[in-house]
Amino acid sequence: MLPNPGSTERTQIHRLNDRAVTDRSVMYEILDSTVLCHIGYVEDGQPFVLPYGYARHGDSILIHGSTGARFMRAMAAGAPVCVTVTKLDGIVIARSTFDSSMNYRTVVILGVAEEVTGAEKETLMDAMSDGLVPGRVAEVRPSLKKELAATMLVRLSLAEASVKVRDGGVDEDRVGYATDEDFNAVWAGVIPLRTVADAPIPADDASASLPLPASVAAFVANPKA
Amino acid sequence: MLPNPGSTERTQIHRLNDRAVTDRSVMYEILDSTVLCHIGYVEDGQPFVLPYGYARHGDSILIHGSTGARFMRAMAAGAPVCVTVTKLDGIVIARSTFDSSMNYRTVVILGVAEEVTGAEKETLMDAMSDGLVPGRVAEVRPSLKKELAATMLVRLSLAEASVKVRDGGVDEDRVGYATDEDFNAVWAGVIPLRTVADAPIPADDASASLPLPASVAAFVANPKA
Repeated sequence: MLPNPGSTERTQIHRLNDRAVTDRSVMYEILDSTVLCHIGYVEDGQPFVLPYGYARHGDSILIHGSTGARFMRAMAAGAPVCVTVTKLDGIVIARSTFDSSMNYRTVVILGVAEEVTGAEKETLMDAMSDGLVPGRVAEVRPSLKKELAATMLVRLSLAEASVKVRDGGVDEDRVGYATDEDFNAVWAGVIPLRTVADAPIPADDASASLPLPASVAAFVANPKA
Repeated sequence: MLPNPGSTERTQIHRLNDRAVTDRSVMYEILDSTVLCHIGYVEDGQPFVLPYGYARHGDSILIHGSTGARFMRAMAAGAPVCVTVTKLDGIVIARSTFDSSMNYRTVVILGVAEEVTGAEKETLMDAMSDGLVPGRVAEVRPSLKKELAATMLVRLSLAEASVKVRDGGVDEDRVGYATDEDFNAVWAGVIPLRTVADAPIPADDASASLPLPASVAAFVANPKA
């Protein structure tokens, strides 16, 4: 059993800690709702933040990339990383810019990744691909040996993570407006945001003549993004 | 005139450098298309990556936060940062998991932020708010002195940045499939993704009785997210 989010010294949330979430199921839900993470690492004291695809697998996340990518090699070699996943759910429009805000859900994972190799790599490469587009692995040919060899797979434990969520409505009072009437003359509310998929674009005539595969139809109906 | 994206030693793109973009207007377009960035900084050798709102202002981006936020203070004190903005535009579904990919646009900015103070702060706080939700500043009361005092504003130059874009369709050949027929029996294509806004939710009865303000209506029609 891993520690809950926010329970280690480095993952305790100090600012706006009413937004801190310690429920692991909320963390899983956020991590399973998208394929995009931002990975931070340090080189000569300079932080770098890069977008990567990822998939959760149990109590870890999986990340793959080219064996030629300097960043993948640095991760596999034990560089401390921070992986952050954020869903922007809405813009909170208050009657002052000060009280305006954003609704979001974010997971911040700290740790050192480990490279996955051998027989486990083949299994987890498929888990990674099916994590990105669920069901896709069964629809295509198996990966080739040379493809596996060209790809590095790393795993990062969710043992040290924090979760922060801002949801709900506008949080403000009448400060700065002389009367209730002045205050009520200004609109306040929330603009909800979500990601949608448009109709898939077939790559060629052969694809255009085929029905959409189940994995693609499911992704379009409920985009993991 | 600032150097173009990707033209400094630290921002040259080595991997998949056909995706590197050196056109400043593309960088501006990406930066102006969303309000969410991920900021990386280092503390005791450990990278941290946090989601923040931002707005571009000329050849800089602006970021604001509470004067009580450790991270804001670290930025203002000259900690090297990396600010990354990523738009996920689509999932590229090839006939192999290896050739599958994502369409994205990303800007990576390196540098040291500087705190904005004095009279310039008042002006740029409004520029920041109007960058998040264009037109909103004119619809609400001016910021109060105590609100300005509680908010730290920093500016990060776009002098050292890189831009990477993957767009278009599937890039694959028939490798791994025995015949054209086998290959063509598998669907390939792109799932386009975009962010949409749903109907704004008024905060209270007063707001519900008002028409949507122009800033909110424009944001909903063309979400900056």
